[in-house]
Amino acid sequence: MNEQSPTIDTTRAETFRHWTPVTLRFSDQDSMGHINNVSYGAFVEAGRNAFVTQYLKPDTHPGIDFVLARVTIDFRAEMHYPGTIDVGTCIKRIGNSSITIGTGIFKDGVLHATAESTNVFIDLGTRKSCPVPADIRSELERLLIEAAGV
Amino acid sequence: MNEQSPTIDTTRAETFRHWTPVTLRFSDQDSMGHINNVSYGAFVEAGRNAFVTQYLKPDTHPGIDFVLARVTIDFRAEMHYPGTIDVGTCIKRIGNSSITIGTGIFKDGVLHATAESTNVFIDLGTRKSCPVPADIRSELERLLIEAAGV
Amino acid sequence: MNEQSPTIDTTRAETFRHWTPVTLRFSDQDSMGHINNVSYGAFVEAGRNAFVTQYLKPDTHPGIDFVLARVTIDFRAEMHYPGTIDVGTCIKRIGNSSITIGTGIFKDGVLHATAESTNVFIDLGTRKSCPVPADIRSELERLLIEAAGV
Amino acid sequence: MNEQSPTIDTTRAETFRHWTPVTLRFSDQDSMGHINNVSYGAFVEAGRNAFVTQYLKPDTHPGIDFVLARVTIDFRAEMHYPGTIDVGTCIKRIGNSSITIGTGIFKDGVLHATAESTNVFIDLGTRKSCPVPADIRSELERLLIEAAGV
Repeated sequence: MNEQSPTIDTTRAETFRHWTPVTLRFSDQDSMGHINNVSYGAFVEAGRNAFVTQYLKPDTHPGIDFVLARVTIDFRAEMHYPGTIDVGTCIKRIGNSSITIGTGIFKDGVLHATAESTNVFIDLGTRKSCPVPADIRSELERLLIEAAGV
Repeated sequence: MNEQSPTIDTTRAETFRHWTPVTLRFSDQDSMGHINNVSYGAFVEAGRNAFVTQYLKPDTHPGIDFVLARVTIDFRAEMHYPGTIDVGTCIKRIGNSSITIGTGIFKDGVLHATAESTNVFIDLGTRKSCPVPADIRSELERLLIEAAGV
Repeated sequence: MNEQSPTIDTTRAETFRHWTPVTLRFSDQDSMGHINNVSYGAFVEAGRNAFVTQYLKPDTHPGIDFVLARVTIDFRAEMHYPGTIDVGTCIKRIGNSSITIGTGIFKDGVLHATAESTNVFIDLGTRKSCPVPADIRSELERLLIEAAGV
Repeated sequence: MNEQSPTIDTTRAETFRHWTPVTLRFSDQDSMGHINNVSYGAFVEAGRNAFVTQYLKPDTHPGIDFVLARVTIDFRAEMHYPGTIDVGTCIKRIGNSSITIGTGIFKDGVLHATAESTNVFIDLGTRKSCPVPADIRSELERLLIEAAGV
């Protein structure tokens, strides 16, 4: 973990530059009439995947895999069908061989959940973790400063 | 089934007046990199539920339940993530105690699937099927003529 | 479709030789406290995929693809969490270039749904439908007679 | 959080007394041929829900709700279809108004993921968090000692 990492507040919509709309589905509901917590994992992934595809360009580093190691979701308000949610995604921390992606999930402008996803870079030759490639690090540092609003 | 039912062509976008956008999720994909057939069921339901809520107003007939009896989906083209699909929903047939709802699923203007859902009206007192209520039948007949483009 | 196809009754457990257990998940429920119809699609697929892997051995015909063209599910009883369901799968019809796989879904010995899945054989060279390969047809005919209880 | 909480090691199968089998589904796979991370959320929930139903008996405290506040999943090995996984669930920490439930997910005896779920007790009258009821606390303390292997 980078000691100099700025604090990124994923509870505020202003933090995010990258947004992914996700439409709620009837089948996302559970037996209590809420959007089920399992579906939140799909919402976080929808945003994370769009973010990664745009900024990390996995295809440009064929010898490196990018593996999801941990996801934490904080549920902050009950969500109800129907509607479209706005999934904000940003870079939150840049480590030596891993990065943490932050998520904020909003519906009608109201925060409903935040999340953190940690991904590790793996050298496909050795099957061990490897440093974040320099070009990706450079792009992520630019995004980190943007998200921090520094 | 009503003998006089006009033919409703759910392969043509022009048939539909009611559209529900559905955003694809990374987790909708299967191991072949297609959108999995199971997710199509959720797309059909997203459109059907929005249609039913708008035109059948289930809350206005508290003694009657509306039960899904059959769903048929015809897969017409492989679908790929990411993107937003357009789910067209219409009334296709009006029976004595059941109705058939038609679905057309389009992505970028191209037909990917059609579906039929049969719902039965149930009297909650007797737990048996009952006639389609007159006000719902009247509204559905209006929509049927519209969908048929007569 | 083969005119000589025997009638296969997927409402009876005795029809099935191939069973796939599927555990229900809390997230399979919908806002009415039933197992949602979309999950039934996953149950049908779980059985169909196990059946196909065992009897059709797709890997032994590398030039041929096997594409799902249609699924019909008949919902015959409301299903409730928790528990394990028994998904029976059988061959129901053998056509020239397509086959129909039958499904019966039972919980605690009680029928809850039946389904039909139509799969088409595709020649990967021409991307058009092609005849069911002779060895697969022979195996399926054996299973068809078994399911018919002739 | 209780300072005296013993350390509960959810990476070891020996820690768990409560097991929930979950069958993998074809549709759990993603486009890389792994079991998708979103499905892990459903596995964790399947175990957690069975555990809560058995030991917390939510129906016996009608004035209190039990709300999921946070889930963290650590992905420790790629999982592949087909098969049945064993979801171990235990109590991990008992706080004043919240508890943490631990999960270990094993396939063929090999650890694939661990998880922590934090649930908060809510007084339905005030809609604010409230202390863990004494009878539930007592039962959970018994389970905690068991899980710790003290």
